[in-house]
Amino acid sequence: MHHRSPTIRIALVGFGNVGKTLVERLGGAYQRALREEGAQVRVTGIATRSHGIAVDPQGLDSRSVLRLIRSGRSLGALHRGPVVKSTKHFIKTVPADVLVELTPLDPKRGEPATTHVRLALARRMHVISANKGPVAFALARLRALARRKGRAFLYEGAVMDGAPIFNLVERCLPGTKILSFRGTLNGTTSLILSRMEDGLRAADALREAQALGIAEADPRHDLDGWDGAIKGCALAHAFWGIRVLPTRVRRKGIGGITARDVRRALRHGERLRLVVRGERRGQQVRITVAPEAISLDDPLAGRGGDSALLLETDLAGEIAIVEREGTVDQTAYAVLSDLLAILRRPDRGEAR
Amino acid sequence: MHHRSPTIRIALVGFGNVGKTLVERLGGAYQRALREEGAQVRVTGIATRSHGIAVDPQGLDSRSVLRLIRSGRSLGALHRGPVVKSTKHFIKTVPADVLVELTPLDPKRGEPATTHVRLALARRMHVISANKGPVAFALARLRALARRKGRAFLYEGAVMDGAPIFNLVERCLPGTKILSFRGTLNGTTSLILSRMEDGLRAADALREAQALGIAEADPRHDLDGWDGAIKGCALAHAFWGIRVLPTRVRRKGIGGITARDVRRALRHGERLRLVVRGERRGQQVRITVAPEAISLDDPLAGRGGDSALLLETDLAGEIAIVEREGTVDQTAYAVLSDLLAILRRPDRGEAR
Repeated sequence: MHHRSPTIRIALVGFGNVGKTLVERLGGAYQRALREEGAQVRVTGIATRSHGIAVDPQGLDSRSVLRLIRSGRSLGALHRGPVVKSTKHFIKTVPADVLVELTPLDPKRGEPATTHVRLALARRMHVISANKGPVAFALARLRALARRKGRAFLYEGAVMDGAPIFNLVERCLPGTKILSFRGTLNGTTSLILSRMEDGLRAADALREAQALGIAEADPRHDLDGWDGAIKGCALAHAFWGIRVLPTRVRRKGIGGITARDVRRALRHGERLRLVVRGERRGQQVRITVAPEAISLDDPLAGRGGDSALLLETDLAGEIAIVEREGTVDQTAYAVLSDLLAILRRPDRGEAR
Repeated sequence: MHHRSPTIRIALVGFGNVGKTLVERLGGAYQRALREEGAQVRVTGIATRSHGIAVDPQGLDSRSVLRLIRSGRSLGALHRGPVVKSTKHFIKTVPADVLVELTPLDPKRGEPATTHVRLALARRMHVISANKGPVAFALARLRALARRKGRAFLYEGAVMDGAPIFNLVERCLPGTKILSFRGTLNGTTSLILSRMEDGLRAADALREAQALGIAEADPRHDLDGWDGAIKGCALAHAFWGIRVLPTRVRRKGIGGITARDVRRALRHGERLRLVVRGERRGQQVRITVAPEAISLDDPLAGRGGDSALLLETDLAGEIAIVEREGTVDQTAYAVLSDLLAILRRPDRGEAR
């Protein structure tokens, strides 16, 4: 007798590099992993900023989606059913079990992502966010909402792409307390400072980061430390359950750093990087973002494309996790890993 | 109404630095973590190589145990009940729910640890091993036995002390395949090579490693790559389910390395380390141990006290985990983390 695999229906809000990679791989490289979980995925809706909205309860064809996007056309041609008037309307009505939140962030408010997550949980969808905003600004509230609704809110891709930092702390360090952390969490500034070591000018290095698709939509948010500040707040919120507003982070960017500074550090066996630090003392959490000279034997002193997070714990000493040459592929993997975690829940939502 | 916390009874085989630290901390720093799990631990038996065997169903007093050991006396004075004739007899009769295996290893056969694990699982005890031998030589068999008996066999401390490498792969990288790994897994050789960079002679650096308690009982097993070979086999067995005998590992030690080699590497921006590599192609696994010149921006090029493992995955890119300045404290933590995993099982063994 042949049993059909259960199908989980997912909807995407935001369709940039990560979303495109995800949809492409769900139809390809990720299928083995999903099959091993005894499941298949159907993408039933995509809401984009500039290519319209498409919903199809029977599932959107990934090749058609990618063809339309790449030729600059709207997804509207693939839409089935009543007109969807807005992204919020999409989230409230799309026939899906899981919402994947991938919109660009307004870093000062964590919106619209936080609202999207809240709306989806409220109607009892699981939510996966690769967006640091909701984690930094609203994790405790969103977790509580998810618990009340019996649904999952997962966000492994929000910081350090596919390197499993939230899951490492939650699943692999039982009984420990994180005392402090420090990390090179902003790929754009690491790449710029590393290319300056090679003799490149900062502006040219920035263009390289933009070509690689790792820079923020507005690269000033990378250079002035805003991106790092929000990531530090996201980690603090997840590790300690304490909300720190990014505006409260002491923040210094890399704007004042010259080629001479970079070379002088190297002569001293050090490498300049923009470092995010977090420290907890009782209920007080302090987060800072600033350039630091890092000794070459430190886990944070990797190549320009690497990111690293070092955790100081009470019982397990100091442990670092390093992602080498992170790309959107790894962020898409983080969404897959969250999806697999949902599929392993006893209460996973499934299409009827 | 007052409920007593459930008590889990543990027995230790082997009582070196890790065992002593574990017993000390179970009565101290680890109590908070156990209380948060709603459990308490009672050490009901300890079998040592040169300080006798003690069993007490009511629990051994940790301060008395440590006082006797430190003054070089036998634990026999604390023993209650019939005489225990041997370590095997101890394992077969000790009134405990969990056996913690910490004996020194015969690296050519993985014994007596493998037999100890097998005997304990056979009588339906959970087993925690901080011993790489059983993992390298017998993991698949021991896992199958544990499954048949409905008990856990856990071994996070077998490689890289408290850094959660087995759990990282099992719990945090769902759906990925490990394609290859490379690591600085032998603390003694990393420390020696790093101290040679500082100008120390190899023999003096070895004495330092021995004073720190990180060298193998027979330090030749560190220097000639045996320890690394067994660790490589343990990782391969765990990641790929394929057994490779350590005798089949292509192995080169650090014996031939001179101070001049170390300095020349540094001048080229490289650091010499004994590197364990593993690679899978289909059902073929190749493991090698050899000194390598590592670029300073590589996660493996840390300080002498650091160890690192880099994983090349199919879907999540390259991820490294680094342990800074590993000590027996971290290995004791690995045992605690395995113990907490057992306490979270629905079928955890408890004292009646």
